[in-house]
Amino acid sequence: MQARRKPIALLTAKEIFDLVRDDLALVEDELARQTDTAFPAVSEIAAYLLGGGGKRLRPALLLLSARYAGRNDRSAIRLAAVVELLHSATLIHDDVIDSAGTRRGRPSANAKWGNHRSVLTGDWLYMKSFQMALEERNFRILDILIDLTQKMVEGELIQLEKIGRIDVTEEDALRLATYKTACLFSGCARLGAVLGGLGEEEEQALADYGKYAGLAFQLVDDLLDFTASAQQLGKPVLSDLKEGKVTLPLIYAMENCHREAR
Amino acid sequence: MQARRKPIALLTAKEIFDLVRDDLALVEDELARQTDTAFPAVSEIAAYLLGGGGKRLRPALLLLSARYAGRNDRSAIRLAAVVELLHSATLIHDDVIDSAGTRRGRPSANAKWGNHRSVLTGDWLYMKSFQMALEERNFRILDILIDLTQKMVEGELIQLEKIGRIDVTEEDALRLATYKTACLFSGCARLGAVLGGLGEEEEQALADYGKYAGLAFQLVDDLLDFTASAQQLGKPVLSDLKEGKVTLPLIYAMENCHREAR
Repeated sequence: MQARRKPIALLTAKEIFDLVRDDLALVEDELARQTDTAFPAVSEIAAYLLGGGGKRLRPALLLLSARYAGRNDRSAIRLAAVVELLHSATLIHDDVIDSAGTRRGRPSANAKWGNHRSVLTGDWLYMKSFQMALEERNFRILDILIDLTQKMVEGELIQLEKIGRIDVTEEDALRLATYKTACLFSGCARLGAVLGGLGEEEEQALADYGKYAGLAFQLVDDLLDFTASAQQLGKPVLSDLKEGKVTLPLIYAMENCHREAR
Repeated sequence: MQARRKPIALLTAKEIFDLVRDDLALVEDELARQTDTAFPAVSEIAAYLLGGGGKRLRPALLLLSARYAGRNDRSAIRLAAVVELLHSATLIHDDVIDSAGTRRGRPSANAKWGNHRSVLTGDWLYMKSFQMALEERNFRILDILIDLTQKMVEGELIQLEKIGRIDVTEEDALRLATYKTACLFSGCARLGAVLGGLGEEEEQALADYGKYAGLAFQLVDDLLDFTASAQQLGKPVLSDLKEGKVTLPLIYAMENCHREAR
């Protein structure tokens, strides 16, 4: 007799991941296969980054959305790998950008391999992702992937212009979090819907869910920069603050303190 | 009465460019329009790079090929702009990679704007190119563009591994020139054929023509590093040699000299 299912709202994160645990193992195989290349820089940096204990949130979101939409096949596995590769490519380029020394508790790729190899490996992963996505022969999937990648790049550009400025509004910070993080989460949920051929309304509902999940993720990440230990965080604490990045927790703190304390 | 046409083999470079002069002006408009963005880094770097006196060889090749294939419309203009934007993106990332100080006789983008903005602007131009190409709704065009971009990235990766090594063979150097340069030229000629719906044989002939034109261009460029003045070249002479890049002229020179001279 089958155990009665818990309502989804009561599932723990582990129980949610368990729903797609087998598929996530196949995504890992796909990631390893696609980044095993004749180019040592690419293979080493990709293996290092993909082996760095990422939680595979984005692939999981895509797989869950695709499963809801009735797709649970090679296409879903492949696209789940695509979004993780795109995410990895942006991480590598972001680290070059921030001259970041650590990522997830270890030296960042550019600290180990230099800016040269990191820039090229990021480029290579972008193109590999698009090559894999092209195999679907679906223009909407390509539109979604290229647009969200462009948004992530624009998020980093916006952030770069805001560095060191204290006149960042709540609206600015939310827009930045949307571009940098939530667009990819939203795209993952939307891609599952597109794969399953859902109607416009359900597709938009899933995309919205992904967007707000991404925003929540980014805001918690911003908050942890102030409240967590370096060990929990896998990078130095207050690193956003030291880099001159004004995030939402700081904006709210500043709204609630005297002018002199700012 | 129409003047009798010269056989194509006797045309000068200027006369060849004249065949697509009007279209190239439209390509310039398209390039300016597509890179006029809300992101100052992108607009400034793109305007700087596109205004740097590039000869628009790749757009011209695409336009000539498309015209041969009977296409002389918006699609040809747009794709001609796409290949120039892709070329520009690789130039920007290559300059970050080489820590190059000059490009076409002026400070390189990264020397003026820093690595951060250069990496992101390169990424932005890649995505913009693919967005423009996606408007054609033609999978083969996307396959060609993404594959040749991946090849250019791999060319830079190959070059990076060979830096400072003297055991570079003629075969290595030709492979490198094919990846770095000839693949894009070949792709330009092929895209014209695809736009015009030419048969497989004619498409391949045009792609081959582009490939060999690209190889010739790269070999002349390599040779100029040894024989031209810095003013002619727009960058310091012997810069390849100083960066430890072994190119074909050097390989041939070494084959023709005594062991001690090497």
